[in-house]
Amino acid sequence: MTPRPATASARSVDEYRDTVAALLAPLADRQDEQVPVPGALGRVLAADVLSPIDLPVFRNSAMDGYAVRAADVAVTPVELPVAGVIAAGRAGPELPAGSALKVMTGAPMPPGADCVIPVEDVQAGPQRIVVERGRGRGEFVREAGTDVRVGALVARAGTVLAPRHIAALAAVGLPTVPVLTRLRAVCLTTGDELRPAGSELAPGQIFNSNGIALAAALRADEVDVVDIAHSTDDPARFIAALHAATAAADVVFTSGGVSKGDFEVVKDVLEPLGGTFGSVAVQPGGPQGYTVVDGVPVLSFPGNPVSTMVSYAVFARPAIRALGGLPPAPTGETTLLTPLRSPAGRRQFLRGLRTDDGVEVIGGPGSHLIAGMAWADVLVDVPAEVTSLGVGAPVRILSL
Amino acid sequence: MTPRPATASARSVDEYRDTVAALLAPLADRQDEQVPVPGALGRVLAADVLSPIDLPVFRNSAMDGYAVRAADVAVTPVELPVAGVIAAGRAGPELPAGSALKVMTGAPMPPGADCVIPVEDVQAGPQRIVVERGRGRGEFVREAGTDVRVGALVARAGTVLAPRHIAALAAVGLPTVPVLTRLRAVCLTTGDELRPAGSELAPGQIFNSNGIALAAALRADEVDVVDIAHSTDDPARFIAALHAATAAADVVFTSGGVSKGDFEVVKDVLEPLGGTFGSVAVQPGGPQGYTVVDGVPVLSFPGNPVSTMVSYAVFARPAIRALGGLPPAPTGETTLLTPLRSPAGRRQFLRGLRTDDGVEVIGGPGSHLIAGMAWADVLVDVPAEVTSLGVGAPVRILSL
Repeated sequence: MTPRPATASARSVDEYRDTVAALLAPLADRQDEQVPVPGALGRVLAADVLSPIDLPVFRNSAMDGYAVRAADVAVTPVELPVAGVIAAGRAGPELPAGSALKVMTGAPMPPGADCVIPVEDVQAGPQRIVVERGRGRGEFVREAGTDVRVGALVARAGTVLAPRHIAALAAVGLPTVPVLTRLRAVCLTTGDELRPAGSELAPGQIFNSNGIALAAALRADEVDVVDIAHSTDDPARFIAALHAATAAADVVFTSGGVSKGDFEVVKDVLEPLGGTFGSVAVQPGGPQGYTVVDGVPVLSFPGNPVSTMVSYAVFARPAIRALGGLPPAPTGETTLLTPLRSPAGRRQFLRGLRTDDGVEVIGGPGSHLIAGMAWADVLVDVPAEVTSLGVGAPVRILSL
Repeated sequence: MTPRPATASARSVDEYRDTVAALLAPLADRQDEQVPVPGALGRVLAADVLSPIDLPVFRNSAMDGYAVRAADVAVTPVELPVAGVIAAGRAGPELPAGSALKVMTGAPMPPGADCVIPVEDVQAGPQRIVVERGRGRGEFVREAGTDVRVGALVARAGTVLAPRHIAALAAVGLPTVPVLTRLRAVCLTTGDELRPAGSELAPGQIFNSNGIALAAALRADEVDVVDIAHSTDDPARFIAALHAATAAADVVFTSGGVSKGDFEVVKDVLEPLGGTFGSVAVQPGGPQGYTVVDGVPVLSFPGNPVSTMVSYAVFARPAIRALGGLPPAPTGETTLLTPLRSPAGRRQFLRGLRTDDGVEVIGGPGSHLIAGMAWADVLVDVPAEVTSLGVGAPVRILSL
């Protein structure tokens, strides 16, 4: 018959984020994988990639024109016989003294030639050309290895592969590259009241959005969401769904069933399995829990849709992005454009919309305002000790 | 026997970009498609989405606690009998006068109740509670429709769907949403000298990177690259590959075979089919061509790897992103940290690396320096009339 204060022994946000990071830390030990270069966009290199070849592979012409000896065109105009044509892709003959070989851009320089006269600088006939402007040794010649040398770094471990990296990896002829394996996650929602999209809702029922929303957040962080599952509040069903999830995933996220109600299936099942459940001094997202089941970390978020999304952004996302080799989600400080109040003792994450002048808090603090959250692009981070802030106050924001 | 000046009748960069945009403009008329909400991350809404329901769907409790009449708890402490429990997901009975019904967060408010006493504010026994702090009408009650009303806007046409939008669309129970159909593209490289990754290179051969690189650039812009194809310089093979490409795609990109050499298969085949080939006053990427084949626009880029990538970024990307409903790639102005020279009459796009202080030009201007391009994160845009710029000069940059 004793009241339970909301913040009795509640952990701080930073403390719980560190706890989650420690829980997920063993996932850093997973194996890398080799993926084909054409499919590697957005993946994160697991090792430095060195060039297996010189690039250019061979000395070649930078222009469509005529390969000559610079000494033969030192005085212009000069007429030279055309001894033949070298197309790209074919090794050419040696350049006879006092003559020219027609070359296409990228074609191998014939032995003996030391510069290229661009086609624009000659008067060309089929058998003979008149060179109107000479060139020095090396002009319009690309020497082998001037782009990259065999053994040189093409891209560094940790690079998030953009098209320009893919281009370089393809150019040095690599069929595959070593990348960090994507984390595999299962999102497991709980609650008898949840129905799939498109259902007719009976009284008291709502649509199940948490699994879909959390999966989208994870996928945006390059996690491989292998399943979006749902369990009723029946403990046997939840346990079965949980073991299926741990069998398929590196990390499992549950939503719902962690609070102080009479039917808290997640807490009721996981606490006896060694789970730690309690309060974090945060709003939304106060009730939190974590467990290791079958060797797999299981993070249990509260079931309110906004609580789930904020819990992911604040507690799990930093570790998930770091484990995936991605930079942290952007944070910053800006100017508050709307006054706000905040409960003492709880750090608040309010939904905000950035403008050129700062950030507006939009919607209310309610953890059920999920539709309103669509209009927010940041979370406004209000420290636990702050109870009100006026227009113009500096506030920290976290990108959604 | 007359020389061909490089810039005779060369188009400007802006003019050619507009030409490409006009060529691709008919692709804006494609049909939208419906996709499941869980798979819609990153897609672009084709229409405003309105809520089919009120959210919350029904009046519900914001807390785990006790639904009561505010009038019954106006004076505290007060003892009330507990008439039952309402779990989430079940419609509850009416609240008997002078009593309390236990409610879980999200559970329907029982008719007759007008506020919720949080569990923290009571001393609870199984049959009776002592309420220690009263609440006013509406406290801890979420009214139906306070998040979103039936018929209200959930997300606007043109929204690039982020996790927060997916969350809102799922919460209002939509199984699918209308999105812009992705453009389908084929990348068709040409050149006898090109070999696939992992091959042994014979003299004069190089690895084929353009198709892979261009496909990565297109995929980064949310284009569906349905094939990366290659043709030798044999015209019959190229024609066959081209028709296969136009049958599969909305737009076809070719690389190579557009310059002034003797074996320019792309130009040789497409000019008789009505293709327009010529010079743009730009470096790299001067030789450009476009054709409509089988009703499908075909853009022909030069074959040097850097030329291909710069051609895409400068000429095609603005239209491709606009057609896909994506914002333009970021551009800006910054400070040049390295001096540069540039040929008169040609707009140059040099590879640059941003730092806190400005932009360094890295590598050389050569269109073969594809490995070096991996280290660049922007293109430095040097106007055609500029021949040199010193340290500290303002320069325009275009994100890669």
